[in-house]
Amino acid sequence: MTDKQPWQWPESEWRAKVEKIRAGRPLLHPDVPRRWNDGDKAAVLLSFDADHESGALRDGQTSPGLMAQGEFGTRVGVPRILEVLKRYEVHASFYIPAVCALLRPHEVPAYVESGHEVALHGWIHERNTLLTFDQELDLLGRAADVLQEQSGRRPTGIRTPSWDFSDSTLEVIRELGLLYDSSLMADDAPYELLADGNPTGVVEIPVEWIRDDAAYLEMDRYSGLRPYLSPRQLLQIWKDEFDAAYSANSVFDLTLHPHIIGHRSRLVILEELIDYMRSHAGVWFATHEELALHIAPQLTAGQDFKTS
Amino acid sequence: MTDKQPWQWPESEWRAKVEKIRAGRPLLHPDVPRRWNDGDKAAVLLSFDADHESGALRDGQTSPGLMAQGEFGTRVGVPRILEVLKRYEVHASFYIPAVCALLRPHEVPAYVESGHEVALHGWIHERNTLLTFDQELDLLGRAADVLQEQSGRRPTGIRTPSWDFSDSTLEVIRELGLLYDSSLMADDAPYELLADGNPTGVVEIPVEWIRDDAAYLEMDRYSGLRPYLSPRQLLQIWKDEFDAAYSANSVFDLTLHPHIIGHRSRLVILEELIDYMRSHAGVWFATHEELALHIAPQLTAGQDFKTS
Amino acid sequence: MTDKQPWQWPESEWRAKVEKIRAGRPLLHPDVPRRWNDGDKAAVLLSFDADHESGALRDGQTSPGLMAQGEFGTRVGVPRILEVLKRYEVHASFYIPAVCALLRPHEVPAYVESGHEVALHGWIHERNTLLTFDQELDLLGRAADVLQEQSGRRPTGIRTPSWDFSDSTLEVIRELGLLYDSSLMADDAPYELLADGNPTGVVEIPVEWIRDDAAYLEMDRYSGLRPYLSPRQLLQIWKDEFDAAYSANSVFDLTLHPHIIGHRSRLVILEELIDYMRSHAGVWFATHEELALHIAPQLTAGQDFKTS
Amino acid sequence: MTDKQPWQWPESEWRAKVEKIRAGRPLLHPDVPRRWNDGDKAAVLLSFDADHESGALRDGQTSPGLMAQGEFGTRVGVPRILEVLKRYEVHASFYIPAVCALLRPHEVPAYVESGHEVALHGWIHERNTLLTFDQELDLLGRAADVLQEQSGRRPTGIRTPSWDFSDSTLEVIRELGLLYDSSLMADDAPYELLADGNPTGVVEIPVEWIRDDAAYLEMDRYSGLRPYLSPRQLLQIWKDEFDAAYSANSVFDLTLHPHIIGHRSRLVILEELIDYMRSHAGVWFATHEELALHIAPQLTAGQDFKTS
Repeated sequence: MTDKQPWQWPESEWRAKVEKIRAGRPLLHPDVPRRWNDGDKAAVLLSFDADHESGALRDGQTSPGLMAQGEFGTRVGVPRILEVLKRYEVHASFYIPAVCALLRPHEVPAYVESGHEVALHGWIHERNTLLTFDQELDLLGRAADVLQEQSGRRPTGIRTPSWDFSDSTLEVIRELGLLYDSSLMADDAPYELLADGNPTGVVEIPVEWIRDDAAYLEMDRYSGLRPYLSPRQLLQIWKDEFDAAYSANSVFDLTLHPHIIGHRSRLVILEELIDYMRSHAGVWFATHEELALHIAPQLTAGQDFKTS
Repeated sequence: MTDKQPWQWPESEWRAKVEKIRAGRPLLHPDVPRRWNDGDKAAVLLSFDADHESGALRDGQTSPGLMAQGEFGTRVGVPRILEVLKRYEVHASFYIPAVCALLRPHEVPAYVESGHEVALHGWIHERNTLLTFDQELDLLGRAADVLQEQSGRRPTGIRTPSWDFSDSTLEVIRELGLLYDSSLMADDAPYELLADGNPTGVVEIPVEWIRDDAAYLEMDRYSGLRPYLSPRQLLQIWKDEFDAAYSANSVFDLTLHPHIIGHRSRLVILEELIDYMRSHAGVWFATHEELALHIAPQLTAGQDFKTS
Repeated sequence: MTDKQPWQWPESEWRAKVEKIRAGRPLLHPDVPRRWNDGDKAAVLLSFDADHESGALRDGQTSPGLMAQGEFGTRVGVPRILEVLKRYEVHASFYIPAVCALLRPHEVPAYVESGHEVALHGWIHERNTLLTFDQELDLLGRAADVLQEQSGRRPTGIRTPSWDFSDSTLEVIRELGLLYDSSLMADDAPYELLADGNPTGVVEIPVEWIRDDAAYLEMDRYSGLRPYLSPRQLLQIWKDEFDAAYSANSVFDLTLHPHIIGHRSRLVILEELIDYMRSHAGVWFATHEELALHIAPQLTAGQDFKTS
Repeated sequence: MTDKQPWQWPESEWRAKVEKIRAGRPLLHPDVPRRWNDGDKAAVLLSFDADHESGALRDGQTSPGLMAQGEFGTRVGVPRILEVLKRYEVHASFYIPAVCALLRPHEVPAYVESGHEVALHGWIHERNTLLTFDQELDLLGRAADVLQEQSGRRPTGIRTPSWDFSDSTLEVIRELGLLYDSSLMADDAPYELLADGNPTGVVEIPVEWIRDDAAYLEMDRYSGLRPYLSPRQLLQIWKDEFDAAYSANSVFDLTLHPHIIGHRSRLVILEELIDYMRSHAGVWFATHEELALHIAPQLTAGQDFKTS
């Protein structure tokens, strides 16, 4: 680290920063049409970050008003989402901060009972880039213990809170022996993570703000964040994302939040989107873990993945 | 209270903060179709926060330019809204800061004469989370006196300014013996408020930024807030909210502001929305107080509600 | 002035601030259909704030990049706008800061030659609420001299820059003997200004951010302002504003900026809007001065208006 | 430079600042229909700023999360864009910071091989207005060396990063002997740059935020920038821009970014736009350099342009 301005950095410095964590081998070869399971053409990964009150808690903002805005997620959003997923017979991945799991000990079991994946989303939706390696590892290790205790098996994947993947995160992931991460954005399709140029045996299932309800719909009275697009506009964007993924025999993943998408005027677009995607032949609705296991054989590096 | 970062808080701390004020018993049982009054299928609660100049006053911003922007609400918005409500023969709830009521002593009586509810909205649109309990109680107590004096009866409900429900608000509500609050967001349908897990006998009629004109249309030259969606987009969102509420035999409530919705290109969507909702069979247009009284018998705890 | 928080202010303080400058007598009686000129049904007031580089200059931001963004207004926007107005045979009002007039001495004469009104818009688009009375009067007095020199007659009206009407502005207006102001927002239709409750003989032709291109389309790289709505959405909003004004036999006024509306994808909606409004019978396209003179006889107070 | 507030500046000061760099002779005479090459009616200039990670690097923000968001541009966006351009048989201009070129030495050669222009976009996407003349010259000189080394010829044009054209930029451009700049906004059509009123022999091919994907779609978690319009809305805006440019026998230029437009739901509008423009007779898809060379004979001043 130097005191220089970025435009004064020597090549060694900017190169090291850029190349620290990079995208490696594509785990779905981009040029070759492929089959998923039994002839499926494309994969759809629905995921829900069950943040509820934790985004406000993480900032130390704990007024009853803000707590209630998050409570909507667990009280109303989650049951509605579970009903929709059941009706359409699709499985999804739920990423939940440990604090939220502890606050309502029935929530994680309900996900598991319905056949959904439960995976890591930090301790209290902490911002990793503000923590040391030890702090990040401690919080995530304890979170894994909580989810294992409540779900009956150890989580195999992580989505970092706010997708705030720090300089320590990959090392923490390897220390915990996780199969996959789903926080980075270097591709639309999964790839193997590289550390300083070397394959790591960790699957990355990339995300994008484009396919995230919070980027468009989050409302924060005092920071000035507002809903900038209407749900109907999001539906069009997500259909366009799916259409191109489907044509490319690739992956379409979506990140949603129970306290955001769970409202009536928004759930209607989720239903319409699932309906639209299901009307296409050969779409595999998979959990992130199912996809990661499916493509893991293509990894270059030996995995440290610890099965529970 | 500790000096620790939120991610260092012990469980006792984050649990206490989250569980301080929570949603309790649903006052409309979510699984059972219900009847409102004489066979009505769903309830629509229209409300208007008559803030006028008080949002700017509260921040100490008193230039004639800003004062005029608020004045539009009382001079133009209110008469137009009263005309629309009369034409469609529906009643609504008006929440007005005491300062606004005192500035134009004819305004509250005009609401009452037209059959609308008048209820609490703070003294000067103060931000409760910046006040002590004593300050909050003092301001709200004096506000209740003003509204009682002008309307002929004591208000039975409150909507906190900016829905900024503080750690003191519930205690203030109970001290004042109010029937209901309409500031929290833990559900779409009414529920009983819990304090530290115990039923309070206070009805919560929840709100949402999704169903609030200010979240989308507020304009503040220097803070950077702008109209982000067009009125026609809001109409679609609110129709979607109503449709789902109607299908669920539930409640649709809307929060509007005379100085925002009262403009010509916006009033047109309010008229179209009311027209649309009235075209459905069995819609009960109620005030918040009417709904609260209707469901109060389902409350668990004894009420301190003081009738005037 | 006290050191108290606004919620601690005595009634005398908040009342004085609110009542300092208020809307008085409506100069178009709202309940009675009226005729404008020779049977016209409604009035349309188009106006252009020729700010060009002055918004950036006013903030001391003078990089060539920002200067060029403003230069577009005078080099490209103004000629296109003049061509459109000529083609549709309508007159408009141009508000121009004196610095802009001095930078291109041919601009004001071109407005006058085409039959348009030229009126005050500050010296350098200054923020009045940051100035003393003496400073505001000095700058505006010198601006009036510049416009008189270039246009051949003394301006009779003012639009304060950014509609930032200060505690001094009305007194400055009276000192300069202006006929009208067009900066406040207490109504859709013109009214007489009151000072501390007393009629002033000054006509207010109100404006609104809803009918201002900058509120929706301004782009500022570093402050985060962006175009939030598409021009097609604005067209719908402005048509809705016009429709209701037309139905009410009232006034529709629009505030545009050559460096904003003058771009190709935006000018197209201005043309479509004018076309739409002209297709209605009995629409009087007037300058602000023409309207002010038309309604001035209804003023309560004697006017200090000085004709040039 | 004085310590005075802008509204206190003497005329000499504001005049000098405004007139330092201005638009001179239009290089496409605006009143006369013209022919481009062999009867073409209008010119379309597609350009891509290959910023990738450099926007975040420039701010010293180097978390793996942000680095991956930029990596998408080079890993996924660029190949997709090259495929689209090849399929539609059109050439474009690629502006790339030297640091990005050095990070992936295959990228610039791939542009050149496909027949596209490669030109300057700073060293590390630095903000020129924060630099001295010497710093700006040094960084840009070294960037020119890198691009010459990788592309086989010296770049002839520049687009300043973030279009942040400083007080030094024009002198730097002349020192480096560049043919054209593409960073300013004083017109829709190309013009000759003036320095203190004197022709410079430098071609300006102007840009606009209206025709820039980043202005509408950039997403920055913590600064609050969000996608404010949907891609479908941008398509309409850009069609409107093209239509008017086509009618005027003029130029339509578009600035895109691989890490923004390269996503699936966005690339679809680029394809539809190119398709739409190609369906018009006589459209010349040119690089910026081709256009600059085509119109350079109309320059007033002798050029210092150094051919490589």
